[in-house]
Amino acid sequence: MALGTDYAQQDCSLARALEVVGERWSLLIVRDAFYGVTRFNDFSAHLDIPRAVLTARLRLLVTAGVLRKEPYRHSPTRHSYVLTEAGRELWLPVYVLARWGERHASDKGPRIVFSHASCDARLDPFGTCPDCHRLIPPDEVMMQPSPGATAPMRKDPVSRALARPHKLLTPVDLETAA
Amino acid sequence: MALGTDYAQQDCSLARALEVVGERWSLLIVRDAFYGVTRFNDFSAHLDIPRAVLTARLRLLVTAGVLRKEPYRHSPTRHSYVLTEAGRELWLPVYVLARWGERHASDKGPRIVFSHASCDARLDPFGTCPDCHRLIPPDEVMMQPSPGATAPMRKDPVSRALARPHKLLTPVDLETAA
Repeated sequence: MALGTDYAQQDCSLARALEVVGERWSLLIVRDAFYGVTRFNDFSAHLDIPRAVLTARLRLLVTAGVLRKEPYRHSPTRHSYVLTEAGRELWLPVYVLARWGERHASDKGPRIVFSHASCDARLDPFGTCPDCHRLIPPDEVMMQPSPGATAPMRKDPVSRALARPHKLLTPVDLETAA
Repeated sequence: MALGTDYAQQDCSLARALEVVGERWSLLIVRDAFYGVTRFNDFSAHLDIPRAVLTARLRLLVTAGVLRKEPYRHSPTRHSYVLTEAGRELWLPVYVLARWGERHASDKGPRIVFSHASCDARLDPFGTCPDCHRLIPPDEVMMQPSPGATAPMRKDPVSRALARPHKLLTPVDLETAA
């Protein structure tokens, strides 16, 4: 791993996790993967980061076993990026960190609300369904814009697609949103 | 905020959280604060990072309301850094991310085990006490080296102090460990 990106002298599981997802943009890429973004150009449009940075981050996440590449077109080959099982287990860290940001680092209130798809109850700040009394895995979670949220800041196709209720881990429907 | 450290175009609570704790080393500083590290020189000894970086990160965390400074000596004034209420709410994000790192990014197994101080049960990977069936706040959590862990990598006074069972958020006892 390149100099300055690991924490070799920190004998700690948090340091190991941050070596995988602690780079700038990495957790936002993982967030997008939960939202159903799978293709390079869609990550690029939604995150608005230099393509070289996106390439490097995707490569790291694939190497670390968080994402895996799946071909969706041949000649030329194009890949989609989907969360592995290990990647899906980042749901709770991503979710609780975002809720912390909502409470303590944002002046706009919730932008998105997350609910349990099967019972429609809004998840609590710790990722639990208050009706079903259990942690809800991401493939059972619906996301939708918060009723009180102002108009989305971004107008790219992914942002437009995510302005409608959407189940996590299902590919975003960019056709309808266009 | 300096260029390149925010995510101004990302209208998302996770991006806001990462603006506060997503800088390199920031979450490890917060981890140390949970462990009971309070003084600049102790963070410096335990984290082994350039003092200028530590100074900048502590300043950001204070500005963001994660840590607050408390004088512990006058002429010259020296401050300790303690977690605010908002800072303490980072416990769950830090804990679940570290457990993820333990499962998926470390080949050494658990280095530290965390248990519920009042009943001695080991916390589950989601921060819940399996006996008390609730999320345990950090001031009720005991940490100790995992029984199977190899000898600690670091020999600094903080690492030595943390080689004994220790309640989170209580200042590390560097005298006895020296």
